[in-house]
Amino acid sequence: MATPDVPVPIDRLLLFGERLLARAGVPDEDARLTSRILVEADLRGVESHGVAHLVDFYVRRIQRGEVDPRPNVRVTSDAASAATLDGGRGLGFVVGHRAMSLAIEKARETGIGFVAAGNSTHYGAGAYYAMMALEHDMVGVSMTTGGRMMAVPGGHERILGLNVLAVAAPTSRPFPYVLDMATSVVAAGKFEVARRRGRPVPEGWAVDGDGRPITDPSRLDARAALLPLGGTPEHGAYKGFGLTMMVDILTGGLSGFGTSAEVDTVRGVSHAFAALRIDAFLPAAEYRERMEPMIEAIKRSRIDSGEEVRIPGELEHALADERRSAGVVPVHRDIVAGFRDAAAELDVSFDLTDEA
Amino acid sequence: MATPDVPVPIDRLLLFGERLLARAGVPDEDARLTSRILVEADLRGVESHGVAHLVDFYVRRIQRGEVDPRPNVRVTSDAASAATLDGGRGLGFVVGHRAMSLAIEKARETGIGFVAAGNSTHYGAGAYYAMMALEHDMVGVSMTTGGRMMAVPGGHERILGLNVLAVAAPTSRPFPYVLDMATSVVAAGKFEVARRRGRPVPEGWAVDGDGRPITDPSRLDARAALLPLGGTPEHGAYKGFGLTMMVDILTGGLSGFGTSAEVDTVRGVSHAFAALRIDAFLPAAEYRERMEPMIEAIKRSRIDSGEEVRIPGELEHALADERRSAGVVPVHRDIVAGFRDAAAELDVSFDLTDEA
Repeated sequence: MATPDVPVPIDRLLLFGERLLARAGVPDEDARLTSRILVEADLRGVESHGVAHLVDFYVRRIQRGEVDPRPNVRVTSDAASAATLDGGRGLGFVVGHRAMSLAIEKARETGIGFVAAGNSTHYGAGAYYAMMALEHDMVGVSMTTGGRMMAVPGGHERILGLNVLAVAAPTSRPFPYVLDMATSVVAAGKFEVARRRGRPVPEGWAVDGDGRPITDPSRLDARAALLPLGGTPEHGAYKGFGLTMMVDILTGGLSGFGTSAEVDTVRGVSHAFAALRIDAFLPAAEYRERMEPMIEAIKRSRIDSGEEVRIPGELEHALADERRSAGVVPVHRDIVAGFRDAAAELDVSFDLTDEA
Repeated sequence: MATPDVPVPIDRLLLFGERLLARAGVPDEDARLTSRILVEADLRGVESHGVAHLVDFYVRRIQRGEVDPRPNVRVTSDAASAATLDGGRGLGFVVGHRAMSLAIEKARETGIGFVAAGNSTHYGAGAYYAMMALEHDMVGVSMTTGGRMMAVPGGHERILGLNVLAVAAPTSRPFPYVLDMATSVVAAGKFEVARRRGRPVPEGWAVDGDGRPITDPSRLDARAALLPLGGTPEHGAYKGFGLTMMVDILTGGLSGFGTSAEVDTVRGVSHAFAALRIDAFLPAAEYRERMEPMIEAIKRSRIDSGEEVRIPGELEHALADERRSAGVVPVHRDIVAGFRDAAAELDVSFDLTDEA
């Protein structure tokens, strides 16, 4: 078989996700929102944060009582340009969308909005929330505490999260700048890929339980830990460590629900969102003009034998455009099979493929 | 000789810097401020951004007309929580202090302040401005475009700046968290050190004019370029590239004076400053409490054979405390000799050492 992917009509996938979540107890509007954010990640080619985890991350956690499908999301502090939300242990998508919307509203009023949200859960791809700012001609920022799998330089054990920083900004081109990065060198998924291919991983990705470098991907056991961006001290791991702490301070510190060092079933995930209204600083057209010399220089710097240099988010934008035009998104057949089973279990109609 | 450093009384160094700058045409108050920011970097052990460059970076640039000692610093846009400054090609210290003070003022009113400043010049160590927020129980952020010496992954040539991100935040300990990082793997100074020691540099620090990795430090010529944090694509260089662009967007994009791709004698340096008032989010005491489990986990994660793990800024804080208590800061004898010459040239009294 050429590809393990099944082409699924986008509109059917959106509706299926919505129905599944609604059946799990999520109010219709929140189910629609969550399904949209997940499918958006698939459209952009970020399968790791798309519908692949719809059942195991979200539906199952609701069923186990770890996520409240009807959370009491409350604003616990509210200033002109800053606010704090208690996410009521709801779906991170619902908490994140509400918090970023509030940041955008504040930016409309004062120029900037910054909202910290705690007591939340996994919110999918950070890029989505940052990109919400784009249609308002704002720069958007989204951060979240991640799973606790990171050691710090000179240390061992999984003590900090694979925290995420996402930033979106308009450019002079049809595609926006969209950075969406974990503050670790790589995600754990890269070890799985190397293991399947029987290849070693480079030094600087992870350390074992005693703090020694790992190059055999099968040694990423529960005592091993990933390393912050930079990897080794001589390659700037202290910078990646500092960025990880920065995200922790702005999310779990300001939300009051605790940093990634405290992420467990009690305290939950924390996020932070910022919106900066460009025309509070300068006319938006001038801002766009100032982006062009940078993008032009980046494109021009391609080495003769190499491929075009892409700015962060450029390829994802092109892919999403292409898939939207086709009206179809590829989904791994195992995921589709899982959807069929979940549909049967939850008594939801299944129409993602035309097969009986 | 054990050390090439001369112990200089802090108060004399502060006054000497002030007198030298004043004689170069800088108003007394601005000269005092600039000297304080420079000496503060030396106290923290950041000699690369301290008084070492007082003469060549600042006094000489004023004398050559590249820096205006009496700039017309203007607020060109002013919203409740956002503003833009035209630095009038003044000393970056003066522009930076004014802009960060404005961000703090806005944060006091609305919760957050964000100020972009352009048409400025080198502002020394980014940490200083971020740390201005600390005494107000705020989180501080400072960014600046840096010298254009960076290539992007898959590219060659020096097209982007060694842009800087600095963040300061209170903690549960006597020392604050202070991150102050260039978005490159290392600074050019590390090549000088390796060259002097006759040692190769690791792959991932720089590329030659054709985009090939450099490991011989003497090959960092004018066509060669430093690499963004991560270094190689497999170690996350796209993340460092994305962070470099983020700083460019928030500084030169929002200031309207252009990104690091446009830094030249016409457009100048751009900065950005943010202040977040902690008690706009939650009681400051609760915030401090939430920092402790993270710091405790970091300290506890030390490997048995290793040294204590320090959080960003911890060592610098300890060093500054020690030097303040002693009232003395070490300055390289060549720098002291340069001060003696500059004092004679500008007819300023020299009293940094007791030698005749």
